[in-house]
Amino acid sequence: MSWLRNLSKCYFSTTKPLLKPTITDPFHRFPSLTLLSRFSTSTIPETGSTSPVRYAGLGPTKPNEKPRVVVLGTGWAGCRFMKGLDPQIYDIVCVSPRNHMVFTPLLASTCVGTLEFRSVAEPVARIQPAISNEPGSFFFLANCTGINADKHEVQCETVTEGTQTLDPWKFTISYDKLVIALGAQPTTFGIHGVHEHAIFLREVYHAQEIRRKLLLNLMMSEVPGIEEEEKKRLLHCVVVGGGPTGVEFSGELSDFIMRDVRQRYAHVKDYIHVTLIEANEILSSFDDRLRHYATNQLTKSGVRLVRGIVKDVEEKKIILNDGTEVPYGLLVWSTGVGPSPFIQSLDLPKSPGGRIGIDEWLRVPSVQDIFSIGDCSGFVESTGKPTLPALAQVAERQGKYLAILLNKVGKANGGRANSMNDMDLGNQFVYKHLGSMATVGSYKALVDLRQNKEAKGLSLAGFVSWFVWRSAYLTRVISWRNRFYVAINWATTFVFGRDISRI
Amino acid sequence: MSWLRNLSKCYFSTTKPLLKPTITDPFHRFPSLTLLSRFSTSTIPETGSTSPVRYAGLGPTKPNEKPRVVVLGTGWAGCRFMKGLDPQIYDIVCVSPRNHMVFTPLLASTCVGTLEFRSVAEPVARIQPAISNEPGSFFFLANCTGINADKHEVQCETVTEGTQTLDPWKFTISYDKLVIALGAQPTTFGIHGVHEHAIFLREVYHAQEIRRKLLLNLMMSEVPGIEEEEKKRLLHCVVVGGGPTGVEFSGELSDFIMRDVRQRYAHVKDYIHVTLIEANEILSSFDDRLRHYATNQLTKSGVRLVRGIVKDVEEKKIILNDGTEVPYGLLVWSTGVGPSPFIQSLDLPKSPGGRIGIDEWLRVPSVQDIFSIGDCSGFVESTGKPTLPALAQVAERQGKYLAILLNKVGKANGGRANSMNDMDLGNQFVYKHLGSMATVGSYKALVDLRQNKEAKGLSLAGFVSWFVWRSAYLTRVISWRNRFYVAINWATTFVFGRDISRI
Repeated sequence: MSWLRNLSKCYFSTTKPLLKPTITDPFHRFPSLTLLSRFSTSTIPETGSTSPVRYAGLGPTKPNEKPRVVVLGTGWAGCRFMKGLDPQIYDIVCVSPRNHMVFTPLLASTCVGTLEFRSVAEPVARIQPAISNEPGSFFFLANCTGINADKHEVQCETVTEGTQTLDPWKFTISYDKLVIALGAQPTTFGIHGVHEHAIFLREVYHAQEIRRKLLLNLMMSEVPGIEEEEKKRLLHCVVVGGGPTGVEFSGELSDFIMRDVRQRYAHVKDYIHVTLIEANEILSSFDDRLRHYATNQLTKSGVRLVRGIVKDVEEKKIILNDGTEVPYGLLVWSTGVGPSPFIQSLDLPKSPGGRIGIDEWLRVPSVQDIFSIGDCSGFVESTGKPTLPALAQVAERQGKYLAILLNKVGKANGGRANSMNDMDLGNQFVYKHLGSMATVGSYKALVDLRQNKEAKGLSLAGFVSWFVWRSAYLTRVISWRNRFYVAINWATTFVFGRDISRI
Repeated sequence: MSWLRNLSKCYFSTTKPLLKPTITDPFHRFPSLTLLSRFSTSTIPETGSTSPVRYAGLGPTKPNEKPRVVVLGTGWAGCRFMKGLDPQIYDIVCVSPRNHMVFTPLLASTCVGTLEFRSVAEPVARIQPAISNEPGSFFFLANCTGINADKHEVQCETVTEGTQTLDPWKFTISYDKLVIALGAQPTTFGIHGVHEHAIFLREVYHAQEIRRKLLLNLMMSEVPGIEEEEKKRLLHCVVVGGGPTGVEFSGELSDFIMRDVRQRYAHVKDYIHVTLIEANEILSSFDDRLRHYATNQLTKSGVRLVRGIVKDVEEKKIILNDGTEVPYGLLVWSTGVGPSPFIQSLDLPKSPGGRIGIDEWLRVPSVQDIFSIGDCSGFVESTGKPTLPALAQVAERQGKYLAILLNKVGKANGGRANSMNDMDLGNQFVYKHLGSMATVGSYKALVDLRQNKEAKGLSLAGFVSWFVWRSAYLTRVISWRNRFYVAINWATTFVFGRDISRI
């Protein structure tokens, strides 16, 4: 591959198997060297093959350019970080398979039409406009497939979702600073059938799938000739996992049933039921009194709470540890999150539990210029700090902290690669838990303002806490446009009921 | 199949191949005869097979029940008809593969995020609440697969869209009156590749596909290393067909490009282009002056108008009759509509052009109690009347007329099957064209108020006509909820720009 060294604009490692040429495209049959502003492109015909070889990427920044911060991920951590980062100091390049942030605390409400999907999705370009306006800042719809800490570069592959006219495309990006904010993935505890039959509740497309399936099941159960038992199965919604997400979704579902199903699906209203299955106690991190309140509220709205451990998931039923079979029409899985295989595969220090290890300033130790925030990271053992819970709150606080830190570093001329060695980074990141919150349907919520499970402190339940907490949360990342839409959605749901068109 | 005759509740024809038992379902392994209020169900084990045979349906109405009107389709015609039909007189049963009506004049606006998808989708249950509240009225998410005019019944099959936990289910419905309002399907003139590579613009999911593809192409064109030519291809939007739909979509696209792409996709804004290909003249049914205005407006907004005939559609390019190759990233096909294969296959009288033949009262001649309205129907030759254009306006007027007619018939005790033989049906349906309208982007529209192409009359162009016409149209079928949302969508688009999150 000696020809590679002749191409002055190629900055990637030729030893990466990731960069193997795989793309064929009739539009690029002839070699050319079209160089765009900051892009390097080279198309070289492979010996013995008609398909071209294409390598491309964003090379290391030059002295007359701003230093480049590459952000992997568009969750709470990554987006809050980008929002705070100063585009006057840095060029910002974001790589993620989705071009928006999901406002997860409100996602459960979209499954039943209380809120619209778009009201909880915030485009990255609205959070940090620089990525679409600044000449050196970009958003790339791609997955990160590898990190080369020595060379200060990441390998990426575009996400095309099977669109026929596009082949996946590989490219590399050099960074001055890298922020890994890739989040976590749902845990299944190795239970067979979960991935095949259950729906998670972490992305907008999950909520869309739940809504489509719920409405389909409601309509199918009205079809002439469906037997009683099948009707009950179709309209049995099972939620596994009694954390805030599971509880909130159950509460939303029961609201939907109490108000909208009774009116819009009068023929089958007596068949629909919600069951919440939890191995231990629901909302285990909350105050006893609040947990009691939540249990009462859910039971009052018709949610059946079942203590049990799921052993197996089949197409139309789940099987519990004690052998009980539970037929279902809709199965939502929300038993918490763990590190993804990609995070596990990275050759970086790890925290206990397998997350990316970080120090008190959220740096990944033993490598230069790499930071990690949010659910994918945890303090390394030597810090003596505990792994923080996988909460939006933690991610948001880390993103904010790191943006301030890197702005400071950049102002002190430490923005370039390998240039912040002896810099005083100032205050460490300290997490102060502001409290936990969960809604339980009927516009009621629990707010637990204690520092931790053992501490004493304020806890609230009811409508006021629901309103105050939600409104406060909305101001964090969400734009005025979406705040406005959320308010409008709530108002119209209140006046007209939920929308039931299955589009 | 003599056992069938022993089942008093089975009303279907045993000779229909449609009713072949094909459903297997472990939940229904044992024979049972569960009879719900008006449903007949029977599960009989087939000899030599473990899978059950299931036949079910809504049988003929009894004297103590209301007569039953079965409506096939939820387009303009079917929905306007149901809205007008009196649920005190009739039970209404609607069969359609979609549970909402699409407000087609605004569909083009949803492709680029000017309006939200849900704002243009009106659930049938909101148009006619009886179908969800009345014990004998229903909405079934199903396709009609056959009509037996002698037995007064239709065969149906549920639409489950590959959902794994549901098998398609066949059932029959007896009717007292049948209204066929199944619409038409896009014409492709037999051109190869249209179905595979082009997107139509008739359903909400079409608009969703266009939006997803447009945003994907915009993001892909920013990826490092994409060559100039490929970038141009990805961002070349081609519209085939210069009727109102094609023109409106082109106008919306150019609005999107002029305002939102320039701001949100600054890196690639100079690469995106819209080309409108039409074999004849654009908006051929409009006044010369208006057509001239439209051409000017579109050209001013950067839409390239090309006179040409498409010969072949390939994955990444179309080929015109003169051999020109046009590479595209997005291809929208809107060259008009024609009768669907199901309509063509029906053993009913036909109009010239292959639509279902109807007389002056919208009845299908030679059979009893069958009516047809909207794009799927046309006057039989003996009426001497021309086939009406496939317009929302025609469908809406026919639906309204037929609802009034059947309400009258029902009040005069003609609602039952075979009971309106000698009845005086009153005034014939007469169509009076109120004018044509098309928007051309930038909040401008053309309104042609002439009766037909040769007549003289008023024609308007500009913002006022856009506003007046749109507002007037919105009041036809759309609920207050959606009128409100359309207004909110327009206001937020005006203030904040269009939403670009790709969900």
